[in-house]
Amino acid sequence: MISRRTFVRGLATASLAAAAGMRGRAQTAPAVRIDGRRLRERIEALSMFGRPAGGTFADGVSRIAYSDADVAGRRYVMGLMTAAGLQPRIDAAGNIFAVRAGTDRSLPPILFGSHIDSVPSGGNFDGDLGSLSALAVIEALDAAGVRTRHPLEMVVWAHEEGFAFGHGLACSRIAAGEPVDLEQVWTGMTRADAIRKIGGNPDRITEAKRGKGSHHCYLELHIEQGGTLERSGIDIGVVEGIVAIDTYDAIVTGFANHAGTTPIAERHDAMLAAAHLTVAVRDAVTRTAGRQVGTVGQIEVTPNSPNVIPGHARLSVELRDLSPQKLVTMMDDIRARAHEIAAATQTTIEFKKMRSNAPAVASPEVQTAIERAARSLELKSSRLPSGAGHDAQMMALLGPMGMIFVPSVRGISHSPDELTHWDDCERGGNVLLRTILEMDKEPQPTSFRL
Amino acid sequence: MISRRTFVRGLATASLAAAAGMRGRAQTAPAVRIDGRRLRERIEALSMFGRPAGGTFADGVSRIAYSDADVAGRRYVMGLMTAAGLQPRIDAAGNIFAVRAGTDRSLPPILFGSHIDSVPSGGNFDGDLGSLSALAVIEALDAAGVRTRHPLEMVVWAHEEGFAFGHGLACSRIAAGEPVDLEQVWTGMTRADAIRKIGGNPDRITEAKRGKGSHHCYLELHIEQGGTLERSGIDIGVVEGIVAIDTYDAIVTGFANHAGTTPIAERHDAMLAAAHLTVAVRDAVTRTAGRQVGTVGQIEVTPNSPNVIPGHARLSVELRDLSPQKLVTMMDDIRARAHEIAAATQTTIEFKKMRSNAPAVASPEVQTAIERAARSLELKSSRLPSGAGHDAQMMALLGPMGMIFVPSVRGISHSPDELTHWDDCERGGNVLLRTILEMDKEPQPTSFRL
Repeated sequence: MISRRTFVRGLATASLAAAAGMRGRAQTAPAVRIDGRRLRERIEALSMFGRPAGGTFADGVSRIAYSDADVAGRRYVMGLMTAAGLQPRIDAAGNIFAVRAGTDRSLPPILFGSHIDSVPSGGNFDGDLGSLSALAVIEALDAAGVRTRHPLEMVVWAHEEGFAFGHGLACSRIAAGEPVDLEQVWTGMTRADAIRKIGGNPDRITEAKRGKGSHHCYLELHIEQGGTLERSGIDIGVVEGIVAIDTYDAIVTGFANHAGTTPIAERHDAMLAAAHLTVAVRDAVTRTAGRQVGTVGQIEVTPNSPNVIPGHARLSVELRDLSPQKLVTMMDDIRARAHEIAAATQTTIEFKKMRSNAPAVASPEVQTAIERAARSLELKSSRLPSGAGHDAQMMALLGPMGMIFVPSVRGISHSPDELTHWDDCERGGNVLLRTILEMDKEPQPTSFRL
Repeated sequence: MISRRTFVRGLATASLAAAAGMRGRAQTAPAVRIDGRRLRERIEALSMFGRPAGGTFADGVSRIAYSDADVAGRRYVMGLMTAAGLQPRIDAAGNIFAVRAGTDRSLPPILFGSHIDSVPSGGNFDGDLGSLSALAVIEALDAAGVRTRHPLEMVVWAHEEGFAFGHGLACSRIAAGEPVDLEQVWTGMTRADAIRKIGGNPDRITEAKRGKGSHHCYLELHIEQGGTLERSGIDIGVVEGIVAIDTYDAIVTGFANHAGTTPIAERHDAMLAAAHLTVAVRDAVTRTAGRQVGTVGQIEVTPNSPNVIPGHARLSVELRDLSPQKLVTMMDDIRARAHEIAAATQTTIEFKKMRSNAPAVASPEVQTAIERAARSLELKSSRLPSGAGHDAQMMALLGPMGMIFVPSVRGISHSPDELTHWDDCERGGNVLLRTILEMDKEPQPTSFRL
């Protein structure tokens, strides 16, 4: 039985296809669709790798990059790729690639995909949707016998999330030619060990570097991770760009002493200073209007015992906005307040810049192609910035980039409660498919300057 | 060569002895002194058990109760006891006892000692001084051939510090007949396993209970752990009592979400709420004048990642004062503020009372005996409360109790920088010795009501 909505959409698609045909774009195959049910089955199957013991899909996943669960999840996805007739290869950084040939050997590939690692206690859509949809797109084209002019290259980036080794986007960063410290140690393993564990080759790490212009464009389907699309009833988000992110460690040095015998006036309480600083970060972020955010997400206190005044605290301060200047202004505000807090609490506070991500602008041509793709599927779309970092921002250094967002229920992500309705997952996959076909017809976008 | 000070002291001691003789107390042996150099050597030797790798004495010690370092340290001390002709026995709770016979078999023993476990990154005097001085006292009496009427019983209490299993005074608590949860798990071992590890017998735990009045009095020499004695140039603190301590866990429940995509207004940030609560604890403590203290010493944040808004936080709230009523008033203040913080941060905050130590009053007779002992050594003494908890407070449930404090440099303790000058260690040991001799002459104090 065909529901009324599906029926109406079918009609609309047919008429749009006719319109496309009138504009000389008959090679687009409007009937090609991804298999939404299989996409769901695979997202559910992938959720097993890193699921809490005894849990269900709703309990989310902890598939930290380089963990055993990550290795197992990657093996599962590579198995699916092989079964689909692809030949997955792992580059020196640990990223997984596979190419489907195009009809014109002179053209660079259209690159698309996402990641499958998660934060601790994360959800089952962040990254997984874009990775498994990439495969679904290739399978759909195979099933329909559609050949593209450009080769299609799917990618599953390794280590996207900002947890292992203290920050993320690690392996797309290597692909973009940026340096990483292979000697850095995390949970007892060096980054080189970690890369080796997932099948990369740290000794030949520079071979993972991709050249500028080596792909036609990069596309990534992802959940919004915010509540904008869901709240406004929009099906598809067309990403304008990815915000700049500055991350600092605040190091508070006080003096550990006995919690019972040290009078209040003689304390140098690092925890109290850290608490004031956490409040100061929120104040600095909300002082002016705008979409900027700032978060203290991590704290380590030493010695962390109920009966000892903490002598030391380290906390993360992360600031995000499309404007890098706004990040500087907020940080100036935080530093000034930290100076006062240190004096008042008899501690010292110093800041160490841990990383800085420049904003990444999506290619106008790709944004337009996504809008056309959404329209062809009768889906409502809207442009918006991404507050989250994505591998796409590293690929923006190499060529034209675009991202497709689908709604996140209640805007929840990086949480077991992260949820994107299966219909929205399927819609996103189909928009990715259509956008690839749209971009396949385009000459190399001129918006990216080599 | 005798320094002028030692010479003058010698004279004073001699004349005091004469005075004591006039009061019919000729059995006191004023010439008996502990061996201060050997005490120092042993404190230094004991510091090796739990010393950070490659560290020195000044790097402090981590001899957590039930750790391998604790087991090794206990073995070292028992070896010293055996070498001194004592027969150490480990009771069912893991406490170490040894008795030196008195001349009157009908009298109960004078019990004295301390503990040798430490907080993580603690110092080398807290507990160690009182334990090793107890042995030094017995050795000094042996060397001088002095017999007491009462048996002398030295004790090294197990698990005094509030770290293992979340709180301390564990094994003196058992000796006082209070219940402990043998099934509680900490770092993968049950309390029963832990007690077994140090040579106790959890299956016969009730046998560790000591009866009320089963000792003549309990005495403990300890470092002050505050700066009062050092600042005012007082040699000996005569403890009036031990403050009441209430310890709570504050459990903050927010909602974990993406730090980049979740607008400020939609956050339920458990870390921010915890920060406000930490400030509120300080405010509640300083709202009224007095010696009360309050500390947030421990925090655990989940998931504790720089790019995730914390969904959950647990922090310790510890309040201390001689007046239990003041603790209640402070906690009421904190609860009221927590209510406001929860509303403002869109979180919930609940408090769980983890433990409550009643105040423990030192026996007036013992306080007077300590003052006499200090005077006989020409030392300045002063009465003061103890802001720290001690095994003495559990012994106060069973009989008359008294504590001797010696100065802590800059009031630092529970820290590698904890320091008591060797002269002060020796003075404390000698005051302990004299107090024992003073108490040996006393009938059972009447200040403790069975």
